[in-house]
Amino acid sequence: MDFAPSPRAADLAERVRTFVDTEIEPVEPEVLRDIAARRARGEDSWPPAPVVGELQGRARAQGLWNLFLPAGHGDGYAARFGTDGGAGLTNTDYATVAEQMGRSPLAPLVFNCNAPDTGNMEVLLKYGSAEQQQQWLEPLLDGRIRSTFLMTEPDVASSDATNMQATAVLDGDEVVLDGRKWWSTGAGHPDCRVGVFMGLTDRGAHRHRQHSMVLVPLDAPGVRIERMLTALGQYDEPLGHGEVSLDAVRLPTSSILAGPGRAFEIAQGRLGPGRVHHCMRLIGLAEKALELACERSTSRVAFGKPIANLGGNRERLARARIAINQARLHVLHAAWKLDTVGIAGAQSEVSEIKAAVPQMACDVIDLAIQLHGGGGVSEDFPLAAAYAGARSLRLADGPDEVHLGVVARHLLRPYAAPATASVTTPGTTSGTTSGTRAAEREASR
Amino acid sequence: MDFAPSPRAADLAERVRTFVDTEIEPVEPEVLRDIAARRARGEDSWPPAPVVGELQGRARAQGLWNLFLPAGHGDGYAARFGTDGGAGLTNTDYATVAEQMGRSPLAPLVFNCNAPDTGNMEVLLKYGSAEQQQQWLEPLLDGRIRSTFLMTEPDVASSDATNMQATAVLDGDEVVLDGRKWWSTGAGHPDCRVGVFMGLTDRGAHRHRQHSMVLVPLDAPGVRIERMLTALGQYDEPLGHGEVSLDAVRLPTSSILAGPGRAFEIAQGRLGPGRVHHCMRLIGLAEKALELACERSTSRVAFGKPIANLGGNRERLARARIAINQARLHVLHAAWKLDTVGIAGAQSEVSEIKAAVPQMACDVIDLAIQLHGGGGVSEDFPLAAAYAGARSLRLADGPDEVHLGVVARHLLRPYAAPATASVTTPGTTSGTTSGTRAAEREASR
Amino acid sequence: MDFAPSPRAADLAERVRTFVDTEIEPVEPEVLRDIAARRARGEDSWPPAPVVGELQGRARAQGLWNLFLPAGHGDGYAARFGTDGGAGLTNTDYATVAEQMGRSPLAPLVFNCNAPDTGNMEVLLKYGSAEQQQQWLEPLLDGRIRSTFLMTEPDVASSDATNMQATAVLDGDEVVLDGRKWWSTGAGHPDCRVGVFMGLTDRGAHRHRQHSMVLVPLDAPGVRIERMLTALGQYDEPLGHGEVSLDAVRLPTSSILAGPGRAFEIAQGRLGPGRVHHCMRLIGLAEKALELACERSTSRVAFGKPIANLGGNRERLARARIAINQARLHVLHAAWKLDTVGIAGAQSEVSEIKAAVPQMACDVIDLAIQLHGGGGVSEDFPLAAAYAGARSLRLADGPDEVHLGVVARHLLRPYAAPATASVTTPGTTSGTTSGTRAAEREASR
Amino acid sequence: MDFAPSPRAADLAERVRTFVDTEIEPVEPEVLRDIAARRARGEDSWPPAPVVGELQGRARAQGLWNLFLPAGHGDGYAARFGTDGGAGLTNTDYATVAEQMGRSPLAPLVFNCNAPDTGNMEVLLKYGSAEQQQQWLEPLLDGRIRSTFLMTEPDVASSDATNMQATAVLDGDEVVLDGRKWWSTGAGHPDCRVGVFMGLTDRGAHRHRQHSMVLVPLDAPGVRIERMLTALGQYDEPLGHGEVSLDAVRLPTSSILAGPGRAFEIAQGRLGPGRVHHCMRLIGLAEKALELACERSTSRVAFGKPIANLGGNRERLARARIAINQARLHVLHAAWKLDTVGIAGAQSEVSEIKAAVPQMACDVIDLAIQLHGGGGVSEDFPLAAAYAGARSLRLADGPDEVHLGVVARHLLRPYAAPATASVTTPGTTSGTTSGTRAAEREASR
Repeated sequence: MDFAPSPRAADLAERVRTFVDTEIEPVEPEVLRDIAARRARGEDSWPPAPVVGELQGRARAQGLWNLFLPAGHGDGYAARFGTDGGAGLTNTDYATVAEQMGRSPLAPLVFNCNAPDTGNMEVLLKYGSAEQQQQWLEPLLDGRIRSTFLMTEPDVASSDATNMQATAVLDGDEVVLDGRKWWSTGAGHPDCRVGVFMGLTDRGAHRHRQHSMVLVPLDAPGVRIERMLTALGQYDEPLGHGEVSLDAVRLPTSSILAGPGRAFEIAQGRLGPGRVHHCMRLIGLAEKALELACERSTSRVAFGKPIANLGGNRERLARARIAINQARLHVLHAAWKLDTVGIAGAQSEVSEIKAAVPQMACDVIDLAIQLHGGGGVSEDFPLAAAYAGARSLRLADGPDEVHLGVVARHLLRPYAAPATASVTTPGTTSGTTSGTRAAEREASR
Repeated sequence: MDFAPSPRAADLAERVRTFVDTEIEPVEPEVLRDIAARRARGEDSWPPAPVVGELQGRARAQGLWNLFLPAGHGDGYAARFGTDGGAGLTNTDYATVAEQMGRSPLAPLVFNCNAPDTGNMEVLLKYGSAEQQQQWLEPLLDGRIRSTFLMTEPDVASSDATNMQATAVLDGDEVVLDGRKWWSTGAGHPDCRVGVFMGLTDRGAHRHRQHSMVLVPLDAPGVRIERMLTALGQYDEPLGHGEVSLDAVRLPTSSILAGPGRAFEIAQGRLGPGRVHHCMRLIGLAEKALELACERSTSRVAFGKPIANLGGNRERLARARIAINQARLHVLHAAWKLDTVGIAGAQSEVSEIKAAVPQMACDVIDLAIQLHGGGGVSEDFPLAAAYAGARSLRLADGPDEVHLGVVARHLLRPYAAPATASVTTPGTTSGTTSGTRAAEREASR
Repeated sequence: MDFAPSPRAADLAERVRTFVDTEIEPVEPEVLRDIAARRARGEDSWPPAPVVGELQGRARAQGLWNLFLPAGHGDGYAARFGTDGGAGLTNTDYATVAEQMGRSPLAPLVFNCNAPDTGNMEVLLKYGSAEQQQQWLEPLLDGRIRSTFLMTEPDVASSDATNMQATAVLDGDEVVLDGRKWWSTGAGHPDCRVGVFMGLTDRGAHRHRQHSMVLVPLDAPGVRIERMLTALGQYDEPLGHGEVSLDAVRLPTSSILAGPGRAFEIAQGRLGPGRVHHCMRLIGLAEKALELACERSTSRVAFGKPIANLGGNRERLARARIAINQARLHVLHAAWKLDTVGIAGAQSEVSEIKAAVPQMACDVIDLAIQLHGGGGVSEDFPLAAAYAGARSLRLADGPDEVHLGVVARHLLRPYAAPATASVTTPGTTSGTTSGTRAAEREASR
Repeated sequence: MDFAPSPRAADLAERVRTFVDTEIEPVEPEVLRDIAARRARGEDSWPPAPVVGELQGRARAQGLWNLFLPAGHGDGYAARFGTDGGAGLTNTDYATVAEQMGRSPLAPLVFNCNAPDTGNMEVLLKYGSAEQQQQWLEPLLDGRIRSTFLMTEPDVASSDATNMQATAVLDGDEVVLDGRKWWSTGAGHPDCRVGVFMGLTDRGAHRHRQHSMVLVPLDAPGVRIERMLTALGQYDEPLGHGEVSLDAVRLPTSSILAGPGRAFEIAQGRLGPGRVHHCMRLIGLAEKALELACERSTSRVAFGKPIANLGGNRERLARARIAINQARLHVLHAAWKLDTVGIAGAQSEVSEIKAAVPQMACDVIDLAIQLHGGGGVSEDFPLAAAYAGARSLRLADGPDEVHLGVVARHLLRPYAAPATASVTTPGTTSGTTSGTRAAEREASR
């Protein structure tokens, strides 16, 4: 057992941290103020300030680009488009690095490591045809375009993917997309060109083979960004979250990823590392919030003492320290499981962190807000936006409750459930019993 | 012991509820959308839609106007300007009524019962000169103007009022105001005409006689609304929260409320009922959030069940039911204590509810958000704004921690603290000991 | 609305409190030490010390006897056997009084108001025949005998009463009892003479008419107290909790309460007020624990300060103050609902308090333990026993979760559940749908 | 980064687990029942059953003996007295092994790895003279005698070690011990021969050089075990917790460990690894409780479902899974810090786990209790005793709050506290200011 990061991870993490501290944070307040000012004046607040592009260039020049590219799968692209050292990182190594990116809302974009582009690029890497990779993956890796993910729907409980109402109907050599999606992150960016769409293709197929994933150019006829959403009052420019309608959008079947009916399989693979990335960035975000809390509470005085020394504040700060440390180890361990036994073997661990880390981050940020007084809820500190982001991640990529359900399923699997019906109503036939147990199994997902 | 509301409270509460349900809620979404649309277009989002004025007229015509006016003190004004029945309500009766107003963000304004106008009107009622009452109280009661409260400051921990840096210096028959205030609620409304300003007048006086409260017209030279603040991303139009600078603002000393040095005394009286009002509205807000949670979770289906029936959702809803019910009784009891023994006797109770109810409301609203999925954090439901409001009230009018300190002080008063120094270091002189204990007393506030 | 207790309740509460403070608490440590000493020596620790009987006599002489007797139903007995004033108390009045009894583990017995005797006496009062009342109720009211309740079973989840395996089979003019019960409180007392037994009589009847309640003399052939149980290490002498086996116990059918098949109906009526009594005593217990916490934390010093002033202790004490106050109002309100609308109308309220108050008491006692350091977990303070009692009440009379289920059922009743099957699988017939909804209703109990 | 245990740790952990599962757990219920039965009969419940000695012999024969012996320091003894492989384990390796011992209350004693013997042996190893090692360490390593630790006192808040009232006064070539100690674990065992006593020697010395540690034979004149304490009702035979008085106990100065005045230094070194051991055993205990919870909740049925599937139970089980996993990683990381940077560098980490893990264990065990219904609080399951043990560890070796204070001190060290006095009262001299800050530093310990 060795808790020290690998030399490569340590080196990259330190360089990313230095970049965030010295290049991004100094300009971040001005970038955010400029966005807010444009928004307040009714101007277009979506194009990022030119400095963001400059930062991207500098990050790339330093080899701090596309660091998310997975070891093994992304090495060729890593050599061409980015990562210092020329080979992809393990999930464990990337987790160490991603934490540092979580400290700034701009950093993931600056390092070309922001959701949902990372997930979309991974999907293209693993499942894209050569043509699809050339058309979409390469410009994404190059930072020339951005992408969005079209999965969640406003009209149904999307935590249950089988509820999905959007369709991707095959019609000869075309696929026709219809539906309405929302929380399509990235859709606000002026460079957003493509969406990864998920829809129902064949209701008659096995329940995990009914849906397809389709690459849809956002300028295709019938695609319309209906509006940009706020999450707890935040537009999160320059990426944002769109509500997107698709009305009889016709595309060649070559737009389908990996062939019809493979959406669930692709989504499964996409979301594992993505959840680890989210959680690791949340560790960095919580760590940043704790630093702000420490700074503020030691530099402001009330009732003759630094605020930190009043009432239970020191204990709360200590508990935040503990919670972050436990969560960090938990995420690193999940990443290590992904590296050592793969997604199938790490399902419980990935769901564990996804159920626990966003809530932890909310708690730490909320403490920081409280210690900042009125300033904490204002735009003068990054805390209100941080809270909105962390809170939204208790819903995005599966709400806490769904992940707890996955954890429980793994936990209880070794324990034989009793044949419940026979216990309570002895006369029940075995047919009914197995029906009941099938329902339970369903309920337990 | 009788938990039934008085006939008058029951009648008014029912009429207010009916008004909220049938007159306000049907137009509320459109009013809020219109504000958001103007804001998005860079137009002035602060003037309320004409329908708000119409609603005010109808509420007033029904005697549902200025219901906050306190029994005894406000009866004359109640007869002239509002309350059905012609006499002010007890705190207990008003609490029952105010809960219903908390259900809608527009309702308090519609009934002329919104903070900080209510507190300012109470101050004018109790401490205002005839001239001050005529100039400011009457148009406020009439709904012709609005007001703000200039107390909290951006540069110090304002939870400790002795930190205050703003000054109200006497200069002959003038008083000169300097300082910077923020979280001045109401400052965004186009009709906002006057602020109740608190500043240091005489550092040499007894610590609770150093500050003065001054009525400052917002169009006085030197007064400037620097910006409107967001609270967790919400501008809260049409009232909003301003940051206001005062630069050598000269006013006649007749602008001082009750004479120089009486600000603490006035603030004390102002904040007791105000905190009860806030808490009671939060009960209504939490109740509304719970209703939305029940509606959504019984009408959306995932994994073959209404969301309510998944995992721990029913238990969480039940716990929310319990928390609201306990909090409501707690607030009503505090109001009853205010009525029966006065502010001095109800200090612990008022701080108890102020420390507990906003957190309770946050928890219930957060549950409702979670049960709404992505919709919960969006602007499609009133939950994001509700959360922002409830969360801000964990800071406004004294952060939770300060109120817990008050509760602890009352709780521990009967228990003699040990002469601590003498226990640990027997040689200590009594002088040092009492110094230590004085410091402790200070620390315990 | 009036939060003041009635003059009669105030008077009785004060007299009970005085009795507890001046008569019981001074002898309590010695009584408990004597029990522990006998137990340690392997002697019979169950007979209470003679002083307990003396205290009972004095309480009775002061009219502080059988105060639990319900207004209306118990007035005759109240006049004959106890309550000062000669008429039973309302639930609201008794709640105020019962709180004071909760301060001492001996007090309920001293005032003849201990569980399960109170519940058993109420059952006899409402459902007992004249003969049953003469045989069992009168000596119970007189304090000459004690009783136990034989409901919970070791071999099944007794939170679901339909799981019950014990039987009460009719055989001519006899009823034959078989089964094993545990957590039969009171069974350890040497004067315990009778148990109220619940068993299955007719599986073919309506599900709430299958069980009977039978009065079983503990000296009937076939009844055997297998052992006395510990609850978190406590035997709780002199009442205790027994495990009792019944092996072909034959009794005349006149032993059945209210006739065969009425056990559920009786249990329902029995448990409502009983839960309020438990909760109210827990308020007194928590209040006592908080007092001990305040005393200890202001009288011990560490790091140069009274412990109360270290870290978050004052805040925790304040939160305990808040939690008790909210819980007290909640219980009083539930009692008032019982008085004004009856058990059927107060189901949610009774379950609300039963789900919330024991946990609150555990939390407050746990805080008191922590502030006492090692002493807190020892027998030198009543806290370890108090914790055991409060913790056990999260299970007794229905675990928290069952009561939360009741609260949720009431809360969600007004919201129409969707026809779930039709949403997810459009082809489903209405027959299946209503089957699903019946199952849901079942699940929601 | 590598989360896999070392081959040696994996091997030993598996062998210990197998031993616990196949040798200890089968006899454990009978051992505990026998103790309880002797206690109930008033017989001596302290001598362990003969099978415990047999188990010790078998464990030793398998090299599963004295596994706690630290790498480097204990290798010689490890080769002579125990550990398979002949060399001591790192803290990280031992943590993995100790978790398995935490599954059974008997296991630590069986493997000669129980507190406080382990800590006492470590102290003797590091600080003992050759004579002291021969007299006490060797028989302890051999399992021929047991020991106790005489530090905590009943009459003062022992969380602040400077409160200590016991004395160890030098008198020529003798040291004279006086005082009263409690929570002296191990004192109940019939083989307990020696105590490690801490007392004040020289009040005039530097505050961390005033106290001495002395090896006191329990049969020395003046030593008296006043009583054995219960912790939440548990005597914890065969080790137990004693209250011990020392009345003018005269010993040669050669009984002093490492010389007079070095008690704080020794205690510091003793407690670091000890706290990691406690925490790691608690992980095993919590894991065992979770297994029992899963077994019970899947094998009992209520309302037609396994209890696991009712209400929020699956979510709670999942949260327990998460909490244990986070805590385990946290403890392993703290152990790794001890190994890699030593006690001084791992202070925050050790206090983090000590503040977090006992509470986590309490929560998990409490959940298991709740899922067991009435059985959970009884002696039929090991849960009541487990809860008592975990709860006591929130007090033993420093209460949670003291450890949170240590964590906060480390967390806030980099942040300069403001010169508070100068902010609030500008005229204060620097002398007063630094006095204030010294006081703060003191307060922050």
